[in-house]
Amino acid sequence: MLLSGGLDSATALAIARSQGFACYALSVDYGQRHAAELQGAARVARSAGVVEHRTMRVDLAGIGGSALTDPRIAVPEAPTRGIPVTYVPARNTLMLALALGWAEVLDARDIFLGVNVLDSSGYPDCRPEFIAAFAALAAVATKAGVEGAPARIHTPLIEWTKAQIISEGTRLGVDYAQTVSCYQADGEGRACGRCDACRLRRAGFAAAGIADPTRYQPV
Amino acid sequence: MLLSGGLDSATALAIARSQGFACYALSVDYGQRHAAELQGAARVARSAGVVEHRTMRVDLAGIGGSALTDPRIAVPEAPTRGIPVTYVPARNTLMLALALGWAEVLDARDIFLGVNVLDSSGYPDCRPEFIAAFAALAAVATKAGVEGAPARIHTPLIEWTKAQIISEGTRLGVDYAQTVSCYQADGEGRACGRCDACRLRRAGFAAAGIADPTRYQPV
Repeated sequence: MLLSGGLDSATALAIARSQGFACYALSVDYGQRHAAELQGAARVARSAGVVEHRTMRVDLAGIGGSALTDPRIAVPEAPTRGIPVTYVPARNTLMLALALGWAEVLDARDIFLGVNVLDSSGYPDCRPEFIAAFAALAAVATKAGVEGAPARIHTPLIEWTKAQIISEGTRLGVDYAQTVSCYQADGEGRACGRCDACRLRRAGFAAAGIADPTRYQPV
Repeated sequence: MLLSGGLDSATALAIARSQGFACYALSVDYGQRHAAELQGAARVARSAGVVEHRTMRVDLAGIGGSALTDPRIAVPEAPTRGIPVTYVPARNTLMLALALGWAEVLDARDIFLGVNVLDSSGYPDCRPEFIAAFAALAAVATKAGVEGAPARIHTPLIEWTKAQIISEGTRLGVDYAQTVSCYQADGEGRACGRCDACRLRRAGFAAAGIADPTRYQPV
């Protein structure tokens, strides 16, 4: 289970737990400027009662190219067209590769991640065709795949709206106050309220008719 | 260009250079016990005149599962059947994901790697079907792919024997004394002469009729 500390992966974890899976959570410290997210991941993992939570470090900041890893690129605070500058090159490919490796060591056959295409801001690696291509890769990339039992990639939220995600997570008891979606959260995990991720999240709570528990930075 | 410091990737780099590519070399420190390999990579990169050589660290040792990253699992010194314990779960998927990310930042469209199936000891992620699946993934995973110009994955050695690789590399001027193939090289980069990688390498020089420049540990 890839666990970012955001709203989507917290919900995907709750869904996996509700389906009876014993969950191993993997967070990836890829040099994101919003380290508050990783603290969110630890809170969510603890609440959900995962078997184990690991954080692996990969220095994507070293290659740059994204507003999420390069402090010289500003996080946009207005909607943008096309693939936004918060896109991190090959991020989901890399995180799934790490999950695939750990799954193989654990002899786990199911990998969950909380990607979502409708509200995903146009990231190429959040689309169903990306997930299908990764599943095809997993079938030939690993010992488990060669032996006829490749890992399945579960993306329960992929076609949901943010409001649907929040409704289902709330039904399953997710405490969204523990999660951090903001691209520029402060040291206490409080959200800016202005970036793309904050706007999508706030609109999702409004559309779901559920009170937004997000802690925002003082204006 | 993925550059491990071994014989194969040094040859693939020489081939890319001979085809006129300006090369950016990426080595991955994944917690392999043979750190001498990374020093070999630095020597090879320098000799080949790459534009830039980066080493990225990923803590695969943290997930274990391989004799190459887990000191509790012995490196075999006799031929084994099936996928050997030196297989590192999802290693090539992960390294290609890192290369894909850096390629996207560089706006590079060509990724070279020195995988080789005939002499590859049965690793699933050295086979042509793995490379084809990764290329299909790259086409949907990245901004470049979505915009219609996905990265091409070049594997010039994939169907060659070790002897063919050594012959071609020698013709292109590769100094194999700089490379380290051994899974348990010592601090000075000297090879054990007994592990699977050493045996394949030594047999390759013999079959090519080229003197083996490998420095071996005193017996």
